[in-house]
Amino acid sequence: MSDTIKYQLSEDRIARNWYNIVADLPEPLSPVLNPGTGQPIGPEDLAPLFPMALIGQEVSAEREIEIPDPVREVYKMWRPSPLYRARRLEKALDTPAHIYYKYEGVSPAGSHKPNTAVAQAFYNKEEGITKISTETGAGQWGSSLSFAGALFGLDVSVFMVKVSYNQKPYRRALMETYGGRCVASPSMETEAGRAILAADPDTPGSLGMAISEAVEVAATNDDTKYALGSVLNHVLLHQTVIGMEAIEQMEMAGEYPDIVIGCAGGGSNFAGLAFPFIGAKLRGGPAPRVIASEPAACPTLTRGKLAYDFGDTNHMTPLLRMHTLGSSFVPPAFHAGGLRYHGMAPLVSHLMELGEIEATAVHQNPCFEAGIQFAKAEGIIPAPESTHAVRVAFDEALKCKEEGTSRNILFNLSGHGHFDMAAYTDYLSGKLEDKDYDHDKLDASLAALPAVAAE
Amino acid sequence: MSDTIKYQLSEDRIARNWYNIVADLPEPLSPVLNPGTGQPIGPEDLAPLFPMALIGQEVSAEREIEIPDPVREVYKMWRPSPLYRARRLEKALDTPAHIYYKYEGVSPAGSHKPNTAVAQAFYNKEEGITKISTETGAGQWGSSLSFAGALFGLDVSVFMVKVSYNQKPYRRALMETYGGRCVASPSMETEAGRAILAADPDTPGSLGMAISEAVEVAATNDDTKYALGSVLNHVLLHQTVIGMEAIEQMEMAGEYPDIVIGCAGGGSNFAGLAFPFIGAKLRGGPAPRVIASEPAACPTLTRGKLAYDFGDTNHMTPLLRMHTLGSSFVPPAFHAGGLRYHGMAPLVSHLMELGEIEATAVHQNPCFEAGIQFAKAEGIIPAPESTHAVRVAFDEALKCKEEGTSRNILFNLSGHGHFDMAAYTDYLSGKLEDKDYDHDKLDASLAALPAVAAE
Repeated sequence: MSDTIKYQLSEDRIARNWYNIVADLPEPLSPVLNPGTGQPIGPEDLAPLFPMALIGQEVSAEREIEIPDPVREVYKMWRPSPLYRARRLEKALDTPAHIYYKYEGVSPAGSHKPNTAVAQAFYNKEEGITKISTETGAGQWGSSLSFAGALFGLDVSVFMVKVSYNQKPYRRALMETYGGRCVASPSMETEAGRAILAADPDTPGSLGMAISEAVEVAATNDDTKYALGSVLNHVLLHQTVIGMEAIEQMEMAGEYPDIVIGCAGGGSNFAGLAFPFIGAKLRGGPAPRVIASEPAACPTLTRGKLAYDFGDTNHMTPLLRMHTLGSSFVPPAFHAGGLRYHGMAPLVSHLMELGEIEATAVHQNPCFEAGIQFAKAEGIIPAPESTHAVRVAFDEALKCKEEGTSRNILFNLSGHGHFDMAAYTDYLSGKLEDKDYDHDKLDASLAALPAVAAE
Repeated sequence: MSDTIKYQLSEDRIARNWYNIVADLPEPLSPVLNPGTGQPIGPEDLAPLFPMALIGQEVSAEREIEIPDPVREVYKMWRPSPLYRARRLEKALDTPAHIYYKYEGVSPAGSHKPNTAVAQAFYNKEEGITKISTETGAGQWGSSLSFAGALFGLDVSVFMVKVSYNQKPYRRALMETYGGRCVASPSMETEAGRAILAADPDTPGSLGMAISEAVEVAATNDDTKYALGSVLNHVLLHQTVIGMEAIEQMEMAGEYPDIVIGCAGGGSNFAGLAFPFIGAKLRGGPAPRVIASEPAACPTLTRGKLAYDFGDTNHMTPLLRMHTLGSSFVPPAFHAGGLRYHGMAPLVSHLMELGEIEATAVHQNPCFEAGIQFAKAEGIIPAPESTHAVRVAFDEALKCKEEGTSRNILFNLSGHGHFDMAAYTDYLSGKLEDKDYDHDKLDASLAALPAVAAE
């Protein structure tokens, strides 16, 4: 049997519709609430932040939502992304399991994020918007939106968490190469930023603070909308091209996954791969185990509470019902910056509550260990976030070996780690610590969750 | 017409043979000489350094040399690489030219280098070798050989030019992730290194010095061979898969290039794309202009002399007849580290002498300017080396605009710049200087070329 097996779909197999799992949910999703009134918000509440097309997608219950041609045109730059059978890795692990991975690092920005960045840029452009503001932690999202902005002629401003801004100058260079404007957050450009800096001039910043700044810019400027890279329904929707392609590619392989794995921070790459498989099951198809892998230092699904909470630290967003560690929770510094978020996508949280998915928390050192073994066998350096999926795939494959059982394991390799080699350097030199979160602060953060009538 | 046009060959179109241009040369290549005797060297002179299979390829005159199945298996990880029609870029430049690029950055190590690294690792493994030593400047070659070593179970030691070793920790991390051993050169591990350090403890190192160290390790250890990433015939041979695929992909596009462009340091990516097109011409096919683009600060083809010279500073290699700036020439520091070599591949030099190719020298600031415009249109961040090809493609496309003529321009985008973002940061912040080389030192270096009987 061949060592390298790449399942490559032709360009005409790029999906024509995104898949909306809302249509197949056995129980409806809880509404998004206005924090002032405790009542469900309407499209008009979101209009200052998002173009109407995206608001429509956020609340849609249609199973299929058409992908506009100009978005499919851009997808052609790198989609359909390849699905690999990891034969070399199977040999290295000496496992009877069949390991498959869908590789999203082939996009220009190097992760799955452009799947939604391109769509969001398109809809904003269509509605006459010229500027978009957003936030970014590690920089994957900011660089993806900058890339999409360059293609559609939009000015993109990215509030980048200050500690990352200083630590990751190459991510910033990537955004600037695409023409994006990158500002260290908190900044003096917003009320929110100035207030935070007045209280604590030396704050390293946080994703919550950066969201507050980006939202404020959009809310107070008519020509500017806000864009979010995860969590919301429409963002997860755009990512479902991943799983739809994977279903076709697994057909090419003549197998169906027994286990589907994705790393989960806000939930978008996990959902992108998993939702089409979960949807197939909900419509009577086969039932793989679906596992969300999260960092032990920010264990939203495994230690958080399912409750209404704010999406940002400064409480400028509506309330979302989701697994949350509390909006004041600040995870310790670790390298998978894309997974350092206190909340989880409402759709992912809902599916967890319904028992459709399971979650597991993993430590970063075993993740890098798996990432390096993966790189040696398959050549690709996984992003620190993606190593969380690699780790769980390893654990399941080793379980197969122990049990002498073969299972088909499919995971999402959501991006490459080319801009995160400092993390590998730290790991290789033994400098990487597996810091735990502060348990008392988590208790306090959870105790401070907003009291909401609808709960 | 569609905006994104990607010509993707299926896996079964990976070449079964490499193309050896030696078979089609109208005049034979000058032999490699023993510096002591001035006589042509034989296979036995090279045996301490290379496995016999590669020595055989180095001197072969067969037009087609079979690619071993295990090498084709590894090629499948990323080959056939895509060829794009750069429609967005054509629009941005407002040119009637049709711009095509072959993208080699899809390989795991991010450049064309694995095409030969994998082949070299395979042949060494086949002949029972367990260790390979090599040198690297910017790190592309060292990381590619480390990747190939991981796949074939070989220990790879990389002597990395000290200034790069310190400046580019992420390249080093990449090599180490693949299991390669990376040593700052000059080092205390070799006679050559110790002698250099004794004379100048603070030397920043050079590619010439690193070659001397790597060659010494191979020459003095039975279980170790040496590997070179460019210049030699067998290395260029392995790269011809690029151009062979490109010919098929241009057929898919229904066009033939009027101009073929590659950046040239040692000559391997340029040869990889160009040789199959030149060969077709030599056998009576169409005659595109073929342009080698080199850095103005290291102008081997445009300012060098065609003469016998050493491949390294310490004169441990045989003598090659090539365009050279002299083995003591040290180019100023610039970001395209892969193009900072005093010599040029003998085959490329020979074709230049025969008038089959032309050469042009470009400055690094206009190269980065073109690289950034390319990234904004096509999404891909070119490696600093590759921006030299992008720049010349731009210039030819703008000439088409001026003249109101359409031409088909094809260039090799030999790699991505993900590990070189510091260069983009410097350019974007206006810190990049276009340093000229030292003209007096070039004169001195050329004056010191070895006197060789065969000349």
